[in-house]
Amino acid sequence: MSRVLYDLAGADESIRFSPFCWRTKLALAHKNLAFETTPWHFTEKDKIAFSGQSKVPVLVDGEKVVSDSHTIAEYLETTYPNEASLFGEPPARPLTTFIKAWTETVLHPALVPVLLADIHALLTPEDQAYFRQTRKGYYKRSLEDFAAHRAEAITLLNTAMKPLKSTLEKQPFLAGLAPNYADHIVFGALKWATTVSSTTLLEPNGVLERWMNAVLETYGLA
Amino acid sequence: MSRVLYDLAGADESIRFSPFCWRTKLALAHKNLAFETTPWHFTEKDKIAFSGQSKVPVLVDGEKVVSDSHTIAEYLETTYPNEASLFGEPPARPLTTFIKAWTETVLHPALVPVLLADIHALLTPEDQAYFRQTRKGYYKRSLEDFAAHRAEAITLLNTAMKPLKSTLEKQPFLAGLAPNYADHIVFGALKWATTVSSTTLLEPNGVLERWMNAVLETYGLA
Repeated sequence: MSRVLYDLAGADESIRFSPFCWRTKLALAHKNLAFETTPWHFTEKDKIAFSGQSKVPVLVDGEKVVSDSHTIAEYLETTYPNEASLFGEPPARPLTTFIKAWTETVLHPALVPVLLADIHALLTPEDQAYFRQTRKGYYKRSLEDFAAHRAEAITLLNTAMKPLKSTLEKQPFLAGLAPNYADHIVFGALKWATTVSSTTLLEPNGVLERWMNAVLETYGLA
Repeated sequence: MSRVLYDLAGADESIRFSPFCWRTKLALAHKNLAFETTPWHFTEKDKIAFSGQSKVPVLVDGEKVVSDSHTIAEYLETTYPNEASLFGEPPARPLTTFIKAWTETVLHPALVPVLLADIHALLTPEDQAYFRQTRKGYYKRSLEDFAAHRAEAITLLNTAMKPLKSTLEKQPFLAGLAPNYADHIVFGALKWATTVSSTTLLEPNGVLERWMNAVLETYGLA
């Protein structure tokens, strides 16, 4: 059976640079499936018209034509179940490491400029003095400066939260049908935010607010 | 047995806002373990001196004192193995959704401004005209404008890659000891970048370059 992948190429056809085609090439390799590639250029729409698509990757697997890298991955996982799983066990725990790293290197730093002055307002007088001094030490900016730029910080925060929103539009929890520690890590960040923020940060009844409530409901904490 | 969590509080002690304490509270709930909280203020270092820590969360679980939210999660997973797993099956696949969302909403958008003019240079003349026109349509910026701001775009890219670097400093692959589709998705993005970039984007022999080589070696593609 022949297996051919249409693969985006430069003028020099040895240059193959599409990130989506690369996903598919690795998925085929992971499944130990032999394949050939056909170099394809952006304007060669006619060459892949048979697929009903105007973009690559397009995989021709014997009689079957499949396009879109994620659809191809799902197709390979289903069609070749005896080969190594593309999504499978036991990587839940290592993938949680990425959620943690994202939370701590992106989400928390995006929240800090939004929340810092608000947190200060909530503290005991002793803690206020401590907080002002230590945060000035960490961030080299005053609380007043953070407060003055809060609107811009909220814009950046909304950008930072995109992968989270996108994921939770597709599935109820980061961990799937029920929350686990990956959800807990991110929930902590947003609970921090919504607890201390002087303004509404999450769209009321939007995907993030509904997810937070669902986490709490799971544990009888709502 | 008593189980007490020291929990960061505002002047109003009902306000509990630490993202790390929230992680721990949810982890305890996930494990169905009863606990009480003790409100704690930033400056009350003396109250938790027994833990050897100056920060919360600090969990006192009977005779055992554990601090740092991630250490606590590992402790709970090990100590209470018969309760629901904090990291466990089957969420590998749903967690991959987040990796995909991050790649497409953060990493790809961070790469586009760096790569666009470089990609153009690699294309056939027909594709160059197509590419210039369609990208101007998508991004409302010319290739020349992208090229002129490439240095700033690289700075932003390095910020965007932080969670990736941080994860791969801790483990060989996103999926753990061997790559899976989560690795493939992100690899695709960086392979795209390194294939087309006119300058070196990844630190030579740095964690990202070594990870990319290891992915290829896994599949005999190096």
